Amino acid sequence: MWQPTSPGEEPAQPAPHGHARTLSMKQKNPGRWFGQVVKLKKDRVDEYKACHAKVWPEVLKQIKDCGIEDYNIFYDDGLGLLFASFRYIGYDYAGDMEKMAGNPKVREWWKMTDSMQESLVEGAVSSEAGTPSWWRPMEQVFFQP
Amino acid sequence: MWQPTSPGEEPAQPAPHGHARTLSMKQKNPGRWFGQVVKLKKDRVDEYKACHAKVWPEVLKQIKDCGIEDYNIFYDDGLGLLFASFRYIGYDYAGDMEKMAGNPKVREWWKMTDSMQESLVEGAVSSEAGTPSWWRPMEQVFFQP
Repeated sequence: MWQPTSPGEEPAQPAPHGHARTLSMKQKNPGRWFGQVVKLKKDRVDEYKACHAKVWPEVLKQIKDCGIEDYNIFYDDGLGLLFASFRYIGYDYAGDMEKMAGNPKVREWWKMTDSMQESLVEGAVSSEAGTPSWWRPMEQVFFQP
Repeated sequence: MWQPTSPGEEPAQPAPHGHARTLSMKQKNPGRWFGQVVKLKKDRVDEYKACHAKVWPEVLKQIKDCGIEDYNIFYDDGLGLLFASFRYIGYDYAGDMEKMAGNPKVREWWKMTDSMQESLVEGAVSSEAGTPSWWRPMEQVFFQP
């Protein structure tokens, strides 16, 4: 489901340890952004939109609990493509993704949404399989906070 | 350069007025997300990446001053496409975009980057022209903060 932008690069560094002495000193992990692309089957567009308008609460909670925020999925009808981007604010991406895949409700969700999509990654089997990733990772070429 | 996800819909509402009584009560405008797509010419990929690794400071400042943050551009080499997403935290998008286009350095930047791209929007002339938009707006089908 994911891949570092530059292979081998570590996720964003944790904020300094210890209690912040004032509120203004509190630092939040700025996180690391991921971008991904996948094809959406033309005859499943309405269905995909409908289920994403009310994603199962267990799935939303698992995403949050795995340190993922500002999770956007955009759709371009002309291209028939879905683009996702999100910020990972945790400190153990691989571990968090294992937790994600360990949730039966998430796996059920993936099975449903995979059926509406076609991966752009050669050899990709499913979201559950993990490798190679069902969504194709994109390269971050610009970022301004 | 932009278009509301749902035409006619207003930008995110301002935070409540008046001084927050404690720091923890301070509310930030959560903003509104935009997603856009454009084609990158195959023979200009390296050049595009290089200039985005050091965007002119005047351009970065103008983006910030126009209430845009978390501005990502992702590239997919297989598709030859660029995907941008950003959060608009201001209260007058049209006005801010006018300010943006009023900056000569921004217009110079657009002229340069337009030359590396092909718009997916029929009839699009340039980023400077504004309408129809050079980058094609995408539809936000999912968001979790």
